[in-house]
Amino acid sequence: MLDGDRLALARLITRVENRMPDVPDIMRAIHERTGGAYVLGITGPPGAGKSTLVDRVTSRLRAEPVPVGVIAVDPSSPFTGGAVLGDRIRMQAHTLDPDVFIRSMATRGSLGGLARATGDVIKLMDAFGFPWIIIETVGVGQTELDIIRQAMKAGLMEVADIFVVNKADRDGAHALMAELRFSVHLHYTSGGGTKDVDWEVPVLAAQAANDVGIDALLEQVRKHRSALEQAGALEKRRQARRRAELEALLVEEFSAQITARVQSDPALARTLEAVTAGALDSYSAVAQILAQTLKRP
Amino acid sequence: MLDGDRLALARLITRVENRMPDVPDIMRAIHERTGGAYVLGITGPPGAGKSTLVDRVTSRLRAEPVPVGVIAVDPSSPFTGGAVLGDRIRMQAHTLDPDVFIRSMATRGSLGGLARATGDVIKLMDAFGFPWIIIETVGVGQTELDIIRQAMKAGLMEVADIFVVNKADRDGAHALMAELRFSVHLHYTSGGGTKDVDWEVPVLAAQAANDVGIDALLEQVRKHRSALEQAGALEKRRQARRRAELEALLVEEFSAQITARVQSDPALARTLEAVTAGALDSYSAVAQILAQTLKRP
Repeated sequence: MLDGDRLALARLITRVENRMPDVPDIMRAIHERTGGAYVLGITGPPGAGKSTLVDRVTSRLRAEPVPVGVIAVDPSSPFTGGAVLGDRIRMQAHTLDPDVFIRSMATRGSLGGLARATGDVIKLMDAFGFPWIIIETVGVGQTELDIIRQAMKAGLMEVADIFVVNKADRDGAHALMAELRFSVHLHYTSGGGTKDVDWEVPVLAAQAANDVGIDALLEQVRKHRSALEQAGALEKRRQARRRAELEALLVEEFSAQITARVQSDPALARTLEAVTAGALDSYSAVAQILAQTLKRP
Repeated sequence: MLDGDRLALARLITRVENRMPDVPDIMRAIHERTGGAYVLGITGPPGAGKSTLVDRVTSRLRAEPVPVGVIAVDPSSPFTGGAVLGDRIRMQAHTLDPDVFIRSMATRGSLGGLARATGDVIKLMDAFGFPWIIIETVGVGQTELDIIRQAMKAGLMEVADIFVVNKADRDGAHALMAELRFSVHLHYTSGGGTKDVDWEVPVLAAQAANDVGIDALLEQVRKHRSALEQAGALEKRRQARRRAELEALLVEEFSAQITARVQSDPALARTLEAVTAGALDSYSAVAQILAQTLKRP
């Protein structure tokens, strides 16, 4: 894969998705080659036109020309074991382009598992050499405008770096943009949100299907990247993400080891049994298990 | 609280929500009194009329007369620190009834944190003596009929015990019910879903606002409970839930202890620093940290 073999990349991604036992070895082996990619995340409610937007942004980046990795994540189908739409349907324009690599991912078990797998796939694409990786995720949002409004106010204001109102020719789009701009400005002037960079979230109009607004979007993406870099915030965010990934992996592996030990350790097995039967509360059990398994500090 | 003081219950719930340090002591102290409640979970897309349905079901149970605990969970507002709608607005009919206890909960940090807090609040209400506890959760579903259809097929079929099509006088409701019944029957006859009980998920019509269909719903709830009990599945599900709660609490407490140890253990601190700086991959770091902190099995 490190020699540029796309088939090898695809196979490694499958190993990561299936949580094969050699995933730690794979990730260890590629680690040195990671860190070069810039990751652009796009989310929004179903029907917002995210795939089309990703398709257009990819076209622009390819024209530079820059290779692009795309991951389409569908966290809403936990039981199907595969993304609702296949790679090819999503981005037909790029299927024959050897410098665009598209992969769909869906939840196979837990959302946490999907998040970790996605993180590892990003690293694989990063090590492969994609300077841009686009992650498209179906949001848990609503399609009705009033509900989108509420959601914006409740949560997105805190996590989005750029708002795009796609299908901007539709009724209500301009009113929504005005309202968003007002909320964003209020949020910005009141000092809310991430304070690691001085950035008032822009609210952009787009009609991805008509290729309208894509240049302005990419311009803002680059402007935001520069702002992050100049403030030293990009590296800080990456550090925070590395710590979060470490913690998630640590508790997962700890949990797996405890589960394995229950098989051979009668004291652990008794504690687990008492909780299962309802004879012991979880808090007391946790205190016992940690006393039995952790070295003294 | 164990003497029936509602104000004490409310205060303990607040302590649980705020993760006060004495939560383990509280949960230990009430553990013996838990296990008597039957928990009914209601979820669905925004606008489906869940609150009205819960209100009507509560009225029926109160008429028996049975005390009812209600928890309204809003996982969609992670940053607001409070439920969108207050307790009183949701269920005005019951605010003066001393045998109905209503509490709203919203995400304060992580969804995992909300799930644990909700589990602990259920135990508090259980220990207080409510034989019925109703949990109303806003689903991550969609309001548009086509999307509801997809969601049903993708996931709900696996987790729901009863389907209620509320607002059944609306256009398309009967077609949706017919489609759901077909899917449910197919799922049942193909042996899908939980196999711990022989239960074909009923599809009910209701118009909660007009008090229509509530008796039939409660009848099915009771029938399902009997089916679970007769198959021994109720106890098995409770055991599985206790194990899941233990695991969640265990990894949370383990994580907290490791975080605390980093302060005093230079080797741990170095490993964390290397990951944060991008010099060490997470998988290698996890192997090191577990070797440093876990006793040998």
